[in-house]
Amino acid sequence: MAYLHRECGLYRAEGFQALSKILIESDSHRIQALLNVVDDDAIVTPGELGLAEQAFEQLGLDEGTAVRVDHAEPPLSMDAVRRKIGGEPLSLADYRAITRDIVANRYSKMEMAAFLVAAGQSGLDREEILFLTRAMTESGERLHWHEPLVVDKHCIGGIPGNRTTMLVTPIVAAHGTLMPKTSSRAITSPAGTADTMEVLARVELSPSTMHRVVRRERACLAWGGTARLAPVDDILIAVERPLGIDSQGQMIASILSKKLAAGSTHLLLDIPVGPSAKVRHMREALHLRKLFEYVGDHLGLHIEVIITDGSQPIGRGIGPVLEARDVMSVLHNKPDAPDDLRQKALRLAGRILEFDPDVRGGSGYVMARDILDSGRALAKMQAIIEAQGKQTQHFDPGRLSREITAPRDGVVSAIDNFQMSKIARLAGAPMDKGAGVDLLKKIADPVKKGEALYRIHAEFPADFNFASTLASDNSGYRIGNQATAEGPPP
Amino acid sequence: MAYLHRECGLYRAEGFQALSKILIESDSHRIQALLNVVDDDAIVTPGELGLAEQAFEQLGLDEGTAVRVDHAEPPLSMDAVRRKIGGEPLSLADYRAITRDIVANRYSKMEMAAFLVAAGQSGLDREEILFLTRAMTESGERLHWHEPLVVDKHCIGGIPGNRTTMLVTPIVAAHGTLMPKTSSRAITSPAGTADTMEVLARVELSPSTMHRVVRRERACLAWGGTARLAPVDDILIAVERPLGIDSQGQMIASILSKKLAAGSTHLLLDIPVGPSAKVRHMREALHLRKLFEYVGDHLGLHIEVIITDGSQPIGRGIGPVLEARDVMSVLHNKPDAPDDLRQKALRLAGRILEFDPDVRGGSGYVMARDILDSGRALAKMQAIIEAQGKQTQHFDPGRLSREITAPRDGVVSAIDNFQMSKIARLAGAPMDKGAGVDLLKKIADPVKKGEALYRIHAEFPADFNFASTLASDNSGYRIGNQATAEGPPP
Repeated sequence: MAYLHRECGLYRAEGFQALSKILIESDSHRIQALLNVVDDDAIVTPGELGLAEQAFEQLGLDEGTAVRVDHAEPPLSMDAVRRKIGGEPLSLADYRAITRDIVANRYSKMEMAAFLVAAGQSGLDREEILFLTRAMTESGERLHWHEPLVVDKHCIGGIPGNRTTMLVTPIVAAHGTLMPKTSSRAITSPAGTADTMEVLARVELSPSTMHRVVRRERACLAWGGTARLAPVDDILIAVERPLGIDSQGQMIASILSKKLAAGSTHLLLDIPVGPSAKVRHMREALHLRKLFEYVGDHLGLHIEVIITDGSQPIGRGIGPVLEARDVMSVLHNKPDAPDDLRQKALRLAGRILEFDPDVRGGSGYVMARDILDSGRALAKMQAIIEAQGKQTQHFDPGRLSREITAPRDGVVSAIDNFQMSKIARLAGAPMDKGAGVDLLKKIADPVKKGEALYRIHAEFPADFNFASTLASDNSGYRIGNQATAEGPPP
Repeated sequence: MAYLHRECGLYRAEGFQALSKILIESDSHRIQALLNVVDDDAIVTPGELGLAEQAFEQLGLDEGTAVRVDHAEPPLSMDAVRRKIGGEPLSLADYRAITRDIVANRYSKMEMAAFLVAAGQSGLDREEILFLTRAMTESGERLHWHEPLVVDKHCIGGIPGNRTTMLVTPIVAAHGTLMPKTSSRAITSPAGTADTMEVLARVELSPSTMHRVVRRERACLAWGGTARLAPVDDILIAVERPLGIDSQGQMIASILSKKLAAGSTHLLLDIPVGPSAKVRHMREALHLRKLFEYVGDHLGLHIEVIITDGSQPIGRGIGPVLEARDVMSVLHNKPDAPDDLRQKALRLAGRILEFDPDVRGGSGYVMARDILDSGRALAKMQAIIEAQGKQTQHFDPGRLSREITAPRDGVVSAIDNFQMSKIARLAGAPMDKGAGVDLLKKIADPVKKGEALYRIHAEFPADFNFASTLASDNSGYRIGNQATAEGPPP
């Protein structure tokens, strides 16, 4: 953001438009900024150029330095974007030029939207996904761990409560395998791994702290935003999200560029399939698997894909505090710990353990179970929390709560992932850590009319009412007949 | 643009992002604005919301009124845009919802870019072009002239110097046919009709002045920007232009919605075809013609399409002052007036005169020639200039000038419209009225090595140097052999 006075000769002579992009440069420095026109001499006087703090830092010149101001030309790589709009496949050089220009802040949001829509609509062929992934990986810092085996896991998302990362990481690290895990915060879901881990420990680690934690504990559970890994991805997500667009090629490049930049050598990728999951059909999951494998193979990242049951939420809690509670109850081997979360985590951890050449094929699951049952996973988790810095604030489930009950006798036959996520988000998750939904019944559980299906937790009355109203309109649960466990909608 | 203090509780609690869209509302008023975060108590204090002037006016509440501030939800019609991104054809209701939301300032530039790219890339079928045209026409004011015959002409552009409108309008008005002509300023060309007319007269007329001029003279030559006709078009153009995208469906809807909103009943549409024109092949021109006719027929606008020679610039001057000079020399019947401009204007005017049911088919051209030769067209032009208000400033061709010469003996075999436009724009047109290019040779003219092909005019040394350098790199002229009038590139 830059500011010129309405009476400034420059503004009048050049025919700048308010909110247009301008170029600000000295002989050695240049930035682009959005122009804001002001009438108040207290902000800038005619002949002065004001800069917002971020722009001032980016430009890196002292106050009072003379600069030239001009219309910003569209970035050169917009030419490639226009070719993409015309339906042409682009080259590696094109994708490199585009990502370089985006990282250098040469693209306006409008220009990024044009790129994303064009790439999403005409689709990227697998070569282009490979090019884009490579270009995105090169767009920022890259971590080097100097070890032959650096593992990671990723779930393509859509399943609430699916907090396996916080179980898999301590199990794998307890075995000694290096797993420097960085995660995102929730974008459209009620909780990301970073949001949930934050209930227990600090997650915003400096690169040096993260390295220290990983060297000591063989793992971390940190927020990935501080590391400047594949920064172009974060910039594009900030445009994709409000537009509500979601393209396959962009998703694959986004995931794999982050993993490659984080220095991973082996990746276990979880694709949940279910009627209300992101991927609804096995056919689609297989197609995605092949694309991931193709790009991974060409960029030196070993990928194994595991297709899992995405028909309902995993565990009981949905929302940071409730999910952290589930994770800790599994690590503590509590008898009432959610078994689906435990089983899924063991299955994933087992596959990752088998990335270790010294682990016999097929023996991973039993090893993972031994590590969990013996308390070594819990001890490792506590050590990671200690190393990252224990959370000083204590969080409880949201103080406002209400139960949603079964409208009839029967058996739970379906739970809608989207609807449960939406209710938890309206209740305040992930911003209010204690907000969310606690599932008391899962698919195949028998229920009596009036029996509680789940409990909504919220911190603030407005959120509580929004979430309750949505849940009353559509509970997200389907209750079928006892006999068939599949029935008509309620 | 809205301003919150960085320490404002609202900013911190709601997790607003700088430059994100926020909703500002009272019980009766609401607007959306881009959020700007400031640290300076002189601008806003914590607890205060500041608004840029435009936003303040739009909101229409008194200073000191309490408002609610919230994240702006994406406009509802973005759902239709997402379906278009997915390749679906949209309905009239969809296009109406989109244009309504755009006119109400509910779309960010990013969202408009998504719409334009999606509509451009998957293409609009002819039904959709009709829907979009109708929706755009309804998006603003509509003029009513209460006469059965209201004529207009339009050229789809790309040919520099093609200033026929300033000849056709006085000829047609001298006959008595109503031609309330509104034109645009140059967007990507070195001069629009409004820029050129402004050399002679005021063109920014209030709606009431425009009506007064038209009632008195049967015509005007005004800038169309003040009338709020199809305002969604102007908003979309402000996004299309910097993105450099150009889609056929959008172009047709843009042209026809303006004409319909301006109250036209009959339109003559000029499609120039040539190797460096916007339309390069006859096939494409015929396809366009059918689309224009289809949409015009369904919306009650009689359209005749005339396909013209777009192989080189029309007339001699390129740039407002030089083009105005050409126009006036034709109106004055000067012996050295450019004959191609005169002939084309007579051909177009003749066709428009034949829209009058009392004019015999085929007699329009001769009528137009009589009106021009007799001086009635000049008198009408002078009357229009008088009625709109004579330009008080006198403009001369740019004081810096340089001739570009032929590199060899031969015959001019091609002139590149794009290159000539670019040279004229670099020289300063249309901002500097006198800047541009004056063509001294046209296609088929014999030239001697060292003889001048054209003259560049500029007002400022920097522009003059840019334009001269570009012309030295590539003059835009091809000189062929005397015999064939077609030769290899120089």
